[in-house]
Amino acid sequence: MVDQKKEPLLLTPGPLTTSNLVKEATLKDWGSRDQDFIELTARICRRIEDIAGVDPDRTHHVCVPVQGSGTFAVEAALDTVLSRSATVLVLINGAYGHRIARICGYIGRSFVTLETAEDQVPTIEQIEKKLSAEPAITHLATVHCETTSGILNPIEEIASLAHQKGIGLIIDAMSSLGALPLDVTELNCAALVASSNKCLQGLPGVGFAVMEKTVLAGSEGNATSLSLDLFDQWRNFEKTGQWRFTPPTHVLAALDQALVELDEEGGVAGRGTRYQDNCQTLVDGMRGLGFETYLPDDLQAPIIVTFHPPKDLKFGFEDFYNRLRDKGFAIYPGKLTQADSFRMGCIGDLSAKDMKNAVTAVGAVIGEMGIEV
Amino acid sequence: MVDQKKEPLLLTPGPLTTSNLVKEATLKDWGSRDQDFIELTARICRRIEDIAGVDPDRTHHVCVPVQGSGTFAVEAALDTVLSRSATVLVLINGAYGHRIARICGYIGRSFVTLETAEDQVPTIEQIEKKLSAEPAITHLATVHCETTSGILNPIEEIASLAHQKGIGLIIDAMSSLGALPLDVTELNCAALVASSNKCLQGLPGVGFAVMEKTVLAGSEGNATSLSLDLFDQWRNFEKTGQWRFTPPTHVLAALDQALVELDEEGGVAGRGTRYQDNCQTLVDGMRGLGFETYLPDDLQAPIIVTFHPPKDLKFGFEDFYNRLRDKGFAIYPGKLTQADSFRMGCIGDLSAKDMKNAVTAVGAVIGEMGIEV
Repeated sequence: MVDQKKEPLLLTPGPLTTSNLVKEATLKDWGSRDQDFIELTARICRRIEDIAGVDPDRTHHVCVPVQGSGTFAVEAALDTVLSRSATVLVLINGAYGHRIARICGYIGRSFVTLETAEDQVPTIEQIEKKLSAEPAITHLATVHCETTSGILNPIEEIASLAHQKGIGLIIDAMSSLGALPLDVTELNCAALVASSNKCLQGLPGVGFAVMEKTVLAGSEGNATSLSLDLFDQWRNFEKTGQWRFTPPTHVLAALDQALVELDEEGGVAGRGTRYQDNCQTLVDGMRGLGFETYLPDDLQAPIIVTFHPPKDLKFGFEDFYNRLRDKGFAIYPGKLTQADSFRMGCIGDLSAKDMKNAVTAVGAVIGEMGIEV
Repeated sequence: MVDQKKEPLLLTPGPLTTSNLVKEATLKDWGSRDQDFIELTARICRRIEDIAGVDPDRTHHVCVPVQGSGTFAVEAALDTVLSRSATVLVLINGAYGHRIARICGYIGRSFVTLETAEDQVPTIEQIEKKLSAEPAITHLATVHCETTSGILNPIEEIASLAHQKGIGLIIDAMSSLGALPLDVTELNCAALVASSNKCLQGLPGVGFAVMEKTVLAGSEGNATSLSLDLFDQWRNFEKTGQWRFTPPTHVLAALDQALVELDEEGGVAGRGTRYQDNCQTLVDGMRGLGFETYLPDDLQAPIIVTFHPPKDLKFGFEDFYNRLRDKGFAIYPGKLTQADSFRMGCIGDLSAKDMKNAVTAVGAVIGEMGIEV
């Protein structure tokens, strides 16, 4: 058996540190066509619908899960929602916005982009201007919390504009669903995509899209991939309650337990409060050591924080990483295109005390390295 | 904690009954960009290459893993290997052959099919005739062991013909790799595809293709899916040793342990012998109860056995399934298009004694149901 206490805490954007009970839920082999497993899948989908703000009668939206990483789910949602003649406006202020555009290129859908700096959110005026200039646009795709920097995009305003203009909305809510309020009914969104292993605190291996039923019902024939065709997946669930292809049974059993723990924590509000505490503790502590955050506080989501590296030329990320890891904390390299940086996550089965300990460890490492911050 | 002893044994084509140590390997959270995890991924790939007959210098083939179920890996291999102007001959004698054809339709590649009955393998003469009639054919795709019936296709003869004709070969070896001899070097195949959760006895959630390096190197721009682009995945592994997108870390840790257990069992030969024993015990026992196998013995792979149901009108599969499950054995419905049937798997962490107990349970259930076989 693995000694769980010896493993470093993962201060990353995922895979995360999960609870012991979540991991232990994998200790059973499930028959994927068994009634118990059919019920487990249905229970997971209904819970995710509740978290995402689907109306209690489940009239308007439905959760469709898909095997793979979050990117698989994002591609599946785009490939299913977008007809072959659609044109999508992709908002970009980080790597995951760029990835959406890249997917559109792969799956052969027309797209235009609106790119802002990695520390800036797009304004409604900028989006309106783009829509006026490109009347062919039928859809808008955006990331909610850009994990690249940790920036939070103004999703309600964007959704309101898309609805007003009659444009279909696809939201990559990978690193926000479960911790930040999201309501697909109010947002009127065609698809909201997330995965098991971020704020839901499950294990990686499955994603899902919460999709507008009328959009889904009209999407037959859109997809250019069998594996990623959420229409076909949905139709099969409706017919049999079963996955089309072998599901990651153990990962799903873990997600089922993770969703119980989300309930126990007080749902999205409770989890969001803990992450906010984690984030504040981290930012205050790191600033106390002399570090600066990349983002101003009003744009910072309580998910992952990007820090500028020390200006001291003796600082090297790899050395910093290895020393911190030896003290029990794994962090993440930066992903900014314009500036050197590193990232520390606030999500997963971590407390403010863990964040405090992480800051103490960073202080000790900086001391060992003889670095001026 | 789950009481593993109370769970039914899975006599299915997967997900399977796995060992306790395989499941317990999930009890750790891995940072997916951490050196330890990079090494774990590399170790898994090298082991799979050895199992698949890659030359010791690894000159000709390389293993490229991909998140998702086996079908995801099959689609990824087709989408990566086949250029947009390729034409593929798909051999069909069951549902998984049909699925390959369906994937080709989705991803927009030209294909022709050669279909034989579900209890018949294609002959070399039939394939040659098809190739002569359709000179546009550039590739041939076939299933090795068709899980639909359990039939074993003559892969060496097919591979030899493809090589002789200069045609690229794609093999779906989902339910054979790890238990039946397969040698990508001798077979000269462009891609051989399998997954973690069949004869390798891991957990479901990841697949892979063992691909010819020259084919892979020339495949840039083929794929119509970012998630399933194995060229892009391979290039990233070559560059960083890392997955492009969040890998199912816990499933991979379990696969690492499963591959240790395959070694301990004596590799492919040892595992194949146990499955052969399992299959023989099952078939002998079921015949002793009066059941008939769908396939003649010389076409039966030791993976999964299709049985004709009793002719007694009182027999209902659901009742039969539920009663057997209560006695600790989960089986599988049939998948034949032409005949009623049910299936019992011989693979996973099962012994001949387990198969004997399963036959005893079937006998008891038949007695309870008052069925004449």
